[in-house]
Amino acid sequence: MPMPSSLKPEDEMLNWGRLILDGLSYADMVGARDRPAEVTWFDYWMKLANDYEQEATNRLSLGHNLSAGEFLMSAVLCAQYAQFLWFDERRELGQARKVELFQKAAPLLSPPAERHELVVDGIPMPVYVRFPEGPGPHPAVIMIGGLESTKEESYQMENLVLKRGLATATFDGPGQGEMFALKRLAADYEKYTSAVVDLLSGLESIQADAVGVLGRSLGGNYALKSAACDPRIAACISWGGFSDLDYWDAETPLTKESWRYVSKVDTLEEARVHVSQALETRHVLPLIACPTYVLHGVHDEVPLSFVDTVRELIPSEHLTVVVEQDGDHCCHNLGMRPRLEMADWLQDVLHADKKRIS
Amino acid sequence: MPMPSSLKPEDEMLNWGRLILDGLSYADMVGARDRPAEVTWFDYWMKLANDYEQEATNRLSLGHNLSAGEFLMSAVLCAQYAQFLWFDERRELGQARKVELFQKAAPLLSPPAERHELVVDGIPMPVYVRFPEGPGPHPAVIMIGGLESTKEESYQMENLVLKRGLATATFDGPGQGEMFALKRLAADYEKYTSAVVDLLSGLESIQADAVGVLGRSLGGNYALKSAACDPRIAACISWGGFSDLDYWDAETPLTKESWRYVSKVDTLEEARVHVSQALETRHVLPLIACPTYVLHGVHDEVPLSFVDTVRELIPSEHLTVVVEQDGDHCCHNLGMRPRLEMADWLQDVLHADKKRIS
Repeated sequence: MPMPSSLKPEDEMLNWGRLILDGLSYADMVGARDRPAEVTWFDYWMKLANDYEQEATNRLSLGHNLSAGEFLMSAVLCAQYAQFLWFDERRELGQARKVELFQKAAPLLSPPAERHELVVDGIPMPVYVRFPEGPGPHPAVIMIGGLESTKEESYQMENLVLKRGLATATFDGPGQGEMFALKRLAADYEKYTSAVVDLLSGLESIQADAVGVLGRSLGGNYALKSAACDPRIAACISWGGFSDLDYWDAETPLTKESWRYVSKVDTLEEARVHVSQALETRHVLPLIACPTYVLHGVHDEVPLSFVDTVRELIPSEHLTVVVEQDGDHCCHNLGMRPRLEMADWLQDVLHADKKRIS
Repeated sequence: MPMPSSLKPEDEMLNWGRLILDGLSYADMVGARDRPAEVTWFDYWMKLANDYEQEATNRLSLGHNLSAGEFLMSAVLCAQYAQFLWFDERRELGQARKVELFQKAAPLLSPPAERHELVVDGIPMPVYVRFPEGPGPHPAVIMIGGLESTKEESYQMENLVLKRGLATATFDGPGQGEMFALKRLAADYEKYTSAVVDLLSGLESIQADAVGVLGRSLGGNYALKSAACDPRIAACISWGGFSDLDYWDAETPLTKESWRYVSKVDTLEEARVHVSQALETRHVLPLIACPTYVLHGVHDEVPLSFVDTVRELIPSEHLTVVVEQDGDHCCHNLGMRPRLEMADWLQDVLHADKKRIS
């Protein structure tokens, strides 16, 4: 189904706050805005990905692995944001490029991202784990992406968490990034989160009783369900998440189209039915038994009633709710403050000896 | 002398690239642009400085020193950019606030900034030194600010250098920041740089034969002269600098007014004479005997002939010239790339064992 012609995805995408906080350069955003009329958004960012990869190659040849890793992550993010709002061949091209670039970047990051290849229900699922400085075992945070965000997009948030003495793990689940071709958005995302908990629990350098989850946007829905369904999860953050899709009608046309795409169905009505069923969490929220932090912006298209729902259903002794009066979806418009506060909270909950680090 | 009424400093200040790369939040820049008509630029940023300081106080009370340090540096930069384009009581208010906030921030930074109190020709001169991780002795880079930039503004660049195993030192010299009240812009800036070299050379954790300088804008002029006049300086970067003020007429009205202010004279003509004399370096450039890196953007108001001058006068065996065809003043419009390249170059030149770090 083609997109309605009135939509201009890149106009809807004008949340510069999100893209810059996630690691795109302000200079490159300006370049995208001011690019020549004949250059598409996709081509602009894909060329930049090439340029950054070339710069990384130059840096590597000079022995500068640290800068090479930074440039490769810039290339990764350029490829991610080149494709993330289209539902045609650009999507596959950009995703494939991003995955290839991230494999090159991973060992060069500081600290490096270690690749583990899991198979869940016959589906290959790479997981990238990063360890903080100092002797382990370390607590860990599993980062969960959203509707069009993938494991590569949490890089900046990982860095904040790592600096606070916590390891990080990222992966793509059903409907996301590398897994999308093999499995659409589904009602069993928590099974994949639990596979990552299995992996982490078996690593000597990870403290198995201190593994938390942090999910953003749709990932904030998955995080809540994962925490409810896996009692090993010791902390949960829902960052701009939601408990259900009762608010479907309030979604923008582009977001509805995105739901349809990741559901692999033909019509928006089919998408609504599939997504509403797959993302229902209200029946499991009372099972949450770990410290849980819900961040919500009042200007999010997710209605404020979400906050009432979590207050009603998640046991209050476990719940911390932060409502930002001026915040948009995921509070990207508020700068670093909400991110630092979440990172600190994870440190408080998961790190037995936070004073040693901060 | 009041500023010509046609000038709007904050319009001339629209180099968002600079402010964001130096650590201001994109969200706060948007807030400044969209602030209510009755709120001045100065008041907007000074209030934000208060807000960030309060947030830092909250973080400290929770034991989160790392976030407290980050919030205090945000407060510092807000105060810096509140005042940096005005020449009335706002300047002193903003400067004093910034200095106060930086004293609070310094011990909380990661790594912390250690305060040393020098006295040069009877003038007190605080120097802040930061050490990289790992065992010393470490090479070090002295960071030199510019016309309205001060020691606090190099924080982000310090972090890049520190990650590459080099220590950093920052200070305000004649006409800058804390020293301005006691000494105007003067022809002997290099004496103050040398005092910092004295300090560093006497620290056990610093490698005395591997101390470099990096100066930005006007600081790029001071860096060249410092390297020419002090043979102990082992590496020099002139980042958007200049060798002389023959191009005075090409300066913007606001910049001329700024030269007048830091010269403490009444007229622009007096300023021109004073500054041209104080900042002349051509007679000493042939003395430079250390590796020297000159970064210049073709769209800088400093004319391209500067590059010819350094090529003519600095011994070619010591010189690396990088001319960015698309670069503006200091290449702030090119994102992180030029900064990473400079940090890597310093590592190559000053670090005997760079492989250990990167």
